[in-house]
Amino acid sequence: MKRKVAILGATGTVGQRFVQLLANHPFFEITLLAASEASAGKKYADIVHWHLPCEIPEKVKNMEIVSVDSNFDCDYVFSALPSDVAGPVEKRLVERGYTVFSNAASHRMDEDVPLLVPEVNLEHMKLVELQKTPGRLITNPNCSTIGLVMALKPIADLFGIEFVSVVTMQAVSGAGYPGVASLDIIDNVIPYIKNEEDKMCTEPKKILGKFTERGIEFAGFEIVAQCNRVPVQDGHMISAYIETSERVDIDRLIQAIENFAPLKGYKLPTAPEKPLMYLPAKDAPQPRLHRDLGNGMTVSVGRLVKVSDRALRFVALVHNTIRGAAGCAVLNAEVYEALYRTGA
Amino acid sequence: MKRKVAILGATGTVGQRFVQLLANHPFFEITLLAASEASAGKKYADIVHWHLPCEIPEKVKNMEIVSVDSNFDCDYVFSALPSDVAGPVEKRLVERGYTVFSNAASHRMDEDVPLLVPEVNLEHMKLVELQKTPGRLITNPNCSTIGLVMALKPIADLFGIEFVSVVTMQAVSGAGYPGVASLDIIDNVIPYIKNEEDKMCTEPKKILGKFTERGIEFAGFEIVAQCNRVPVQDGHMISAYIETSERVDIDRLIQAIENFAPLKGYKLPTAPEKPLMYLPAKDAPQPRLHRDLGNGMTVSVGRLVKVSDRALRFVALVHNTIRGAAGCAVLNAEVYEALYRTGA
Amino acid sequence: MKRKVAILGATGTVGQRFVQLLANHPFFEITLLAASEASAGKKYADIVHWHLPCEIPEKVKNMEIVSVDSNFDCDYVFSALPSDVAGPVEKRLVERGYTVFSNAASHRMDEDVPLLVPEVNLEHMKLVELQKTPGRLITNPNCSTIGLVMALKPIADLFGIEFVSVVTMQAVSGAGYPGVASLDIIDNVIPYIKNEEDKMCTEPKKILGKFTERGIEFAGFEIVAQCNRVPVQDGHMISAYIETSERVDIDRLIQAIENFAPLKGYKLPTAPEKPLMYLPAKDAPQPRLHRDLGNGMTVSVGRLVKVSDRALRFVALVHNTIRGAAGCAVLNAEVYEALYRTGA
Amino acid sequence: MKRKVAILGATGTVGQRFVQLLANHPFFEITLLAASEASAGKKYADIVHWHLPCEIPEKVKNMEIVSVDSNFDCDYVFSALPSDVAGPVEKRLVERGYTVFSNAASHRMDEDVPLLVPEVNLEHMKLVELQKTPGRLITNPNCSTIGLVMALKPIADLFGIEFVSVVTMQAVSGAGYPGVASLDIIDNVIPYIKNEEDKMCTEPKKILGKFTERGIEFAGFEIVAQCNRVPVQDGHMISAYIETSERVDIDRLIQAIENFAPLKGYKLPTAPEKPLMYLPAKDAPQPRLHRDLGNGMTVSVGRLVKVSDRALRFVALVHNTIRGAAGCAVLNAEVYEALYRTGA
Repeated sequence: MKRKVAILGATGTVGQRFVQLLANHPFFEITLLAASEASAGKKYADIVHWHLPCEIPEKVKNMEIVSVDSNFDCDYVFSALPSDVAGPVEKRLVERGYTVFSNAASHRMDEDVPLLVPEVNLEHMKLVELQKTPGRLITNPNCSTIGLVMALKPIADLFGIEFVSVVTMQAVSGAGYPGVASLDIIDNVIPYIKNEEDKMCTEPKKILGKFTERGIEFAGFEIVAQCNRVPVQDGHMISAYIETSERVDIDRLIQAIENFAPLKGYKLPTAPEKPLMYLPAKDAPQPRLHRDLGNGMTVSVGRLVKVSDRALRFVALVHNTIRGAAGCAVLNAEVYEALYRTGA
Repeated sequence: MKRKVAILGATGTVGQRFVQLLANHPFFEITLLAASEASAGKKYADIVHWHLPCEIPEKVKNMEIVSVDSNFDCDYVFSALPSDVAGPVEKRLVERGYTVFSNAASHRMDEDVPLLVPEVNLEHMKLVELQKTPGRLITNPNCSTIGLVMALKPIADLFGIEFVSVVTMQAVSGAGYPGVASLDIIDNVIPYIKNEEDKMCTEPKKILGKFTERGIEFAGFEIVAQCNRVPVQDGHMISAYIETSERVDIDRLIQAIENFAPLKGYKLPTAPEKPLMYLPAKDAPQPRLHRDLGNGMTVSVGRLVKVSDRALRFVALVHNTIRGAAGCAVLNAEVYEALYRTGA
Repeated sequence: MKRKVAILGATGTVGQRFVQLLANHPFFEITLLAASEASAGKKYADIVHWHLPCEIPEKVKNMEIVSVDSNFDCDYVFSALPSDVAGPVEKRLVERGYTVFSNAASHRMDEDVPLLVPEVNLEHMKLVELQKTPGRLITNPNCSTIGLVMALKPIADLFGIEFVSVVTMQAVSGAGYPGVASLDIIDNVIPYIKNEEDKMCTEPKKILGKFTERGIEFAGFEIVAQCNRVPVQDGHMISAYIETSERVDIDRLIQAIENFAPLKGYKLPTAPEKPLMYLPAKDAPQPRLHRDLGNGMTVSVGRLVKVSDRALRFVALVHNTIRGAAGCAVLNAEVYEALYRTGA
Repeated sequence: MKRKVAILGATGTVGQRFVQLLANHPFFEITLLAASEASAGKKYADIVHWHLPCEIPEKVKNMEIVSVDSNFDCDYVFSALPSDVAGPVEKRLVERGYTVFSNAASHRMDEDVPLLVPEVNLEHMKLVELQKTPGRLITNPNCSTIGLVMALKPIADLFGIEFVSVVTMQAVSGAGYPGVASLDIIDNVIPYIKNEEDKMCTEPKKILGKFTERGIEFAGFEIVAQCNRVPVQDGHMISAYIETSERVDIDRLIQAIENFAPLKGYKLPTAPEKPLMYLPAKDAPQPRLHRDLGNGMTVSVGRLVKVSDRALRFVALVHNTIRGAAGCAVLNAEVYEALYRTGA
């Protein structure tokens, strides 16, 4: 029997991905779509500006949107709410006993909230056991952060990380809808994305930090980030320069990337066979060609170069609305199910 | 009376900019256009695939293309030849007594050849005095390098530079014509440009090096570069992280950028009033909006952030075919004229 | 002495073009910028999202925005208001004695209001003499319509027009700001623009109609229009198939296009030397290359093909925010000045 | 047991689609890839510039390319050769007994060669019985033509067609690789595609013509076509104005489109459930959203408008390299198999 799930913010860019990913999910059944008060009472197909290159799943087309403050008949709630409203709404939901998987930034840095990318910091899930609310709250990081920490994980494990300088080239879908005006981005690059650099400089330290009984001990390295918007539909590119604690060995790193499969034993439907893929071509990865690898859940890495004894650089690509948002939240829910609910 | 000038490789992307910039130049008169053997004997307007948003200047429309190995009736030669043919052709020309201003990479790193951005390393022009040939050869750097060193100059002067990590987002015009295939770049980013990273890691050390009697003493800092192609017509964006020798003071740097005017006294027609412009808007510079500042000769700088006591980051924008190529070569010729020929 | 002019809706896409075109105009002096109530009291540079590739003119940077219902100290008013608010605002202004040149659709089809493209229907200006208000109202057509009627004019004169089938490919700046979402248009075409087809099917009949004492006698031909949005910044392309009353002679048409200069005697600063330009290249016109011909005031025509005895086809290009909007309104004001105010 | 098939021109844009569509085909097995002499002897993965957003199928990665004039061990040959070489090569192949399904233009208008879109003119397949060669040759039309005739078919059946005026907006993949230079198409439209208008004006008359014992009796209507290149990766848009013989009834047409299923009984793996799909949204179809309907084999139709009693207009979208090229050729082969080889 499938768990009943609700999607908050179901009409937005990330909300549509939740709908797509959950419409035929083996564990979960969409029973409820919630959006702003203005949309409540209307049919999903009538108000969504659907912009995915597939049809709206039949089963949600005629679902009636409810307000985010309704009583939900469901087990899990997926939140794609904008950060400015997500905070209190999600708080109320966990107080009322719901388990919430949120893509919003509001509670990511809360002490007892996992900021989870399961392949990277699965043990952080234990933070939920510190939560005092009837329901639980699990968050996933910012889209670019997810791509970065996935690529950093094997480097941290092998060589230790001392310093990270990162420049992103981010797709327009990351800004939601209507998001970036076409007048601003055709034939152009915008070297600024609101709040993005802050998130990239703080979130990875929590994610790559160490779980202890008293909470997460943040990682000690510094991050410098400069974020750009480019005229690309989907797929954030990350160009990174990394200083390490120990000698860099590129061959070992490639091998570690190829063998990277921390969730192998769990048989989770959204976990890709290869969470990381190393692309040896000299001009890879590229958003248009590689963003959909592993159904959008694989982070691809290329242009690995040893810069000096203790420094390297690389390019990574993450599908920002799948692995970098809705897909990661769904994977978090699958992991939660596996750890806390199976056999329940 | 104007100096007679020839343009080699006049049909290409940079060659067309030379034509545009020299068609109404107060010092120079185009007397000759040269291109590959295949084009020789044809009229310019009949063989050029003109892609500038202005009409082909009347005076060159009917000029007959000559072979690059013809005898030229001119004082100066501007070379927009591709690197694979430029080397020997330019060599032969200086042997035959011509003074050549070249945009090609072939001789940039030659010991006695100035790699000149006049606002940055004017004194390097003296290298020509070491040249043993009847003619002289002056080169300008690679397009991205020019943007980078312009932005680095006041930083080097104020704080000293220890380390540079740079990521570029480069326009398609940088690849010439036909250059980048549209199938490769629409809705995409390509994280690789042939030879570009090498140039960006070596050329700045010469340019920011010190002129001595024995040649240039290269600058000592290290550079890490990762170069990307983005779907932009003109204008290379450079995102840089810099470690300095001394404490960073952003206010002083901004002031230095705004006062930056090393060629002020020379009255050169192609020298912009402001070679560097600081843009305080949080989302500047942008290629579409700012590439044409100073008629494409101004490098704009924005997003200046102090990262730590001895580190900062910024974004710079350079019009790659004007300041980053043809415009820089023309400016080099104007400087040469001022230093060596005025009153001659 | 210059006439004082106000710009309504000065912060929008067309409003910015008015600012650019009027900042250094020999006849007119911007004395006032008006926008929505929300902007009133703020400085222009602080609230405008400037997106033209030039700097904001110094003289307007610090102008304080006034509400559209203020008392204006000016002779002429240029209106770039959105159609949903323009109607009553412009009505009030002419009641109060101002002469208004409007780009808005609200009053275009009013019986006593000229819908003017001076090179096409200059005599329609006489409609103002039928206006009963203290002030006068002159409108310019929709952006695509302007391109179409300019190209149709010599055809109508030479051969007569029986039927027009037109397909447009329109730039994103035509939708204003933020206008078209980048998610909707990168790697895409949208085969629909709200109200556009209606305007293209009705406005040309008035413009190409005949002035009589009782008003305009509409032209009798039918128009079919299908309008598309394409990923282009500026410049609307129009592909037209035309059936004529008399035998088509392409050579005569080309000659008529090249000799087209109905405003020659007036010496108007915004009137281009060539209002129409025929481009013989087989792949012209193109938005990026030709939209700025005649400072954006020239409509270029290419691909002229005789289809049958009484049918032809062509492609035309119009810069939608200059000739197709602000530039046409400014030209209308210059014509008005020449006809009604010179020597006053 | 599967039929063995060869792909000629396997490295190009259409060739790659053949590889993708045939790699796991239930009827066919790729046994051979052929390309130009220069590629012969090399491994497919080593020479192809793969630009589809999926990985190269494992089974062809290491296949050795053979010359197009080799002896082929196969039943069917799919030709994606460029038109300038396809003619004689395909001729030689049918002389040697191969059955060739060609996407090239060379033999499309030959009297005894079917120009086949199976849902439109299945009976034209009988032309092969007139062929005197040991092998047979079946061609598919030009990409835009396929989209057009699919949309025209129910109109022709219901109302008869008198006149067609069509304007296309075509994707860059239609030009092959490297094809359209990015400098030519970013922020631009090119109103010309070599030979395209000719093909669109002649091919539909054959396709919509009538099979008789003496060959095809061409359809009698006239077509005017103007073809444009737009900055879109895949998917040709067609905007059409049609004059009909009988009264237009849009409701009947929509019903006919929705019921259009001429291949229903054949169970062909590449035939989409809905060869035509009517999209009622006012802004549909759009290349990015709808090109992949029916795995790229469905032609979508929208914006159906009755213009007058005997005229209508619509917009159609065809995936140019799938339905418009490789997919149509594969479907032709499946149909051929069903008609001539089943049970053989």
